[in-house]
Amino acid sequence: MAEQRGAGMAADIAEQPEVFARLLARADEIGAVAKAIAEKKPRHVVFAARGTSDHAALYGAYLAEIRLGLPAALASPSAITLYGARPDLRDTLVVGVSQSGGSPDLSEVLRVAGEQGALTLAVTNAPGSPLAETAHLHVDIAAGVERAVAATKTYTAELLALLLLVEGVRGLEAGDRAVLESLPELARTTLDDPAPAQIAERYRFAAQVVTTGRGYAYPTAREAALKLMETSYLAALAFSGADLLHGPLAMTDSEVPVLAVTGTGPGGRSMHSVLERLSERRADLVVIGAGEPELKALHLRTPDIDERFAPLLDILPLQQLALAVALARGEDPDAPRGLKKVTATL
Amino acid sequence: MAEQRGAGMAADIAEQPEVFARLLARADEIGAVAKAIAEKKPRHVVFAARGTSDHAALYGAYLAEIRLGLPAALASPSAITLYGARPDLRDTLVVGVSQSGGSPDLSEVLRVAGEQGALTLAVTNAPGSPLAETAHLHVDIAAGVERAVAATKTYTAELLALLLLVEGVRGLEAGDRAVLESLPELARTTLDDPAPAQIAERYRFAAQVVTTGRGYAYPTAREAALKLMETSYLAALAFSGADLLHGPLAMTDSEVPVLAVTGTGPGGRSMHSVLERLSERRADLVVIGAGEPELKALHLRTPDIDERFAPLLDILPLQQLALAVALARGEDPDAPRGLKKVTATL
Repeated sequence: MAEQRGAGMAADIAEQPEVFARLLARADEIGAVAKAIAEKKPRHVVFAARGTSDHAALYGAYLAEIRLGLPAALASPSAITLYGARPDLRDTLVVGVSQSGGSPDLSEVLRVAGEQGALTLAVTNAPGSPLAETAHLHVDIAAGVERAVAATKTYTAELLALLLLVEGVRGLEAGDRAVLESLPELARTTLDDPAPAQIAERYRFAAQVVTTGRGYAYPTAREAALKLMETSYLAALAFSGADLLHGPLAMTDSEVPVLAVTGTGPGGRSMHSVLERLSERRADLVVIGAGEPELKALHLRTPDIDERFAPLLDILPLQQLALAVALARGEDPDAPRGLKKVTATL
Repeated sequence: MAEQRGAGMAADIAEQPEVFARLLARADEIGAVAKAIAEKKPRHVVFAARGTSDHAALYGAYLAEIRLGLPAALASPSAITLYGARPDLRDTLVVGVSQSGGSPDLSEVLRVAGEQGALTLAVTNAPGSPLAETAHLHVDIAAGVERAVAATKTYTAELLALLLLVEGVRGLEAGDRAVLESLPELARTTLDDPAPAQIAERYRFAAQVVTTGRGYAYPTAREAALKLMETSYLAALAFSGADLLHGPLAMTDSEVPVLAVTGTGPGGRSMHSVLERLSERRADLVVIGAGEPELKALHLRTPDIDERFAPLLDILPLQQLALAVALARGEDPDAPRGLKKVTATL
């Protein structure tokens, strides 16, 4: 019997609690890399990544800035690879994030960064890959082979690896250890909720969707948009809650579904005024996160957890939603048209 | 007689050659700020901005990295304003870019940056604004009052101010001076081309649009998308050419117009393979830039100029296109629904 459409992506999504558990079991290995970084006392962090991994890198940048007090940024690889920029990268940690480790531009950025004095680290799902070979340090996210082209389990594994790294550089706190250990079970409970599949039909004929979130939730909004583009071919636009008010708000109306990721911490609270403005524009709202929405909105409920950890769980119903919308539209999310698993850009 | 719809935006757009000339006449003033920066020998540059100004900041980041060899990045204000991050910013230049200088979150970022050891600079169209008052240094882009809510002349004035600053820190080269002096005339010629208004009707019923470019052209792609969202309420998605291949390519088909900004330098050349992939997906292509497109595509021709200067001209036909599409759709680009000129986010 031929395998069902989307079976690969469904299996990847379902495996995430196990992937978390596997990576947590290797926390000491990641801790050793964190220790090597801490000893070098970097003063800046630069991330280089593409696609889904770019969203994991964005999460890493928030963590580095908030938890380590290190200015952190996402690199524009083209400055180095196309225009020959040779920035002074002494005292800088440069982190390449890529599931395949196979994109030549990222390897080139890490190679140049090493020459320019940076300490370089590769976070990949492929220990023997060019990116891993190029970097001084390597973290293997050990997510196993991803079946679908659209990345799901490698995304959350990258998030967890970056979290363990950053907290490892600080020195992992006992309270955090307990939260980390609860993640596989929380992921399982979250994935058991049938709500995402139930609301998917609603978007059968949507032409576009807006996703939004602030702070730690912004990478989740970005990644949700990419999943919907890759699998359902929706025009999915992601904005930080603040940037949404600076222009794109004008394009929202009752025809535009809005997926808003709101935790119960500072990022989520700052979204209240954004949700009010969206509601004034009669946007069709779905709220993702803990806590009841204050406005008329559908709700994809996720565990009430510190916003720092929430990205590992909030993306799960959104991955399920992307899969279900793709199936409702008759698409094959395991093999999106026009895409390959390893994308080589120079 | 009531003023015509879009008359404000049209007047703002038409004024840009004059704005360039005015700002070039004040090059010495900006040179003095550049000298003050050069004396402090910053080792990193961080930009803080929102909306249109964020795209100018992105251009500034490419310039700083390529022309000054300084790692440059765009800040996520929320790390500081929502989560209380206090990054170590010694040896760092922090640049706030904002036409109004009125958004509280940017002033807060610059205030904290100053406390954390940074040299701070505000680039605004409002010398008495909170942002200008907060920063150590200020550059007035002197673009005059902007009539429409959608920013046009303040965008290109920000680009030119950042270019003069960065080249001023290096020491302005004689060859560059000649190119700079030709900009008002080149802008005038570019704006005289009727092509953007002629092709606008074509997008009367488009539901979405993709914009793309690499390197120096990427900010142009981003800004074009924002203009189309603000004025025509199109779902406009901007991607770097490289990121487009990492997923979003799947959503392009013959129903999705693609606006591709391609110069004749390294960024433009690297777009050839992207254009080929888009063409395979039967995307409806418009190429913006110098040089004939190699593939079947409409063409908005702009002057053949070093890619470093091209963003000041390539955006002009795209602003005109956004205005014309808005009018073709019966919208009022001077007062987009749901937006105000100064957006206050915390």
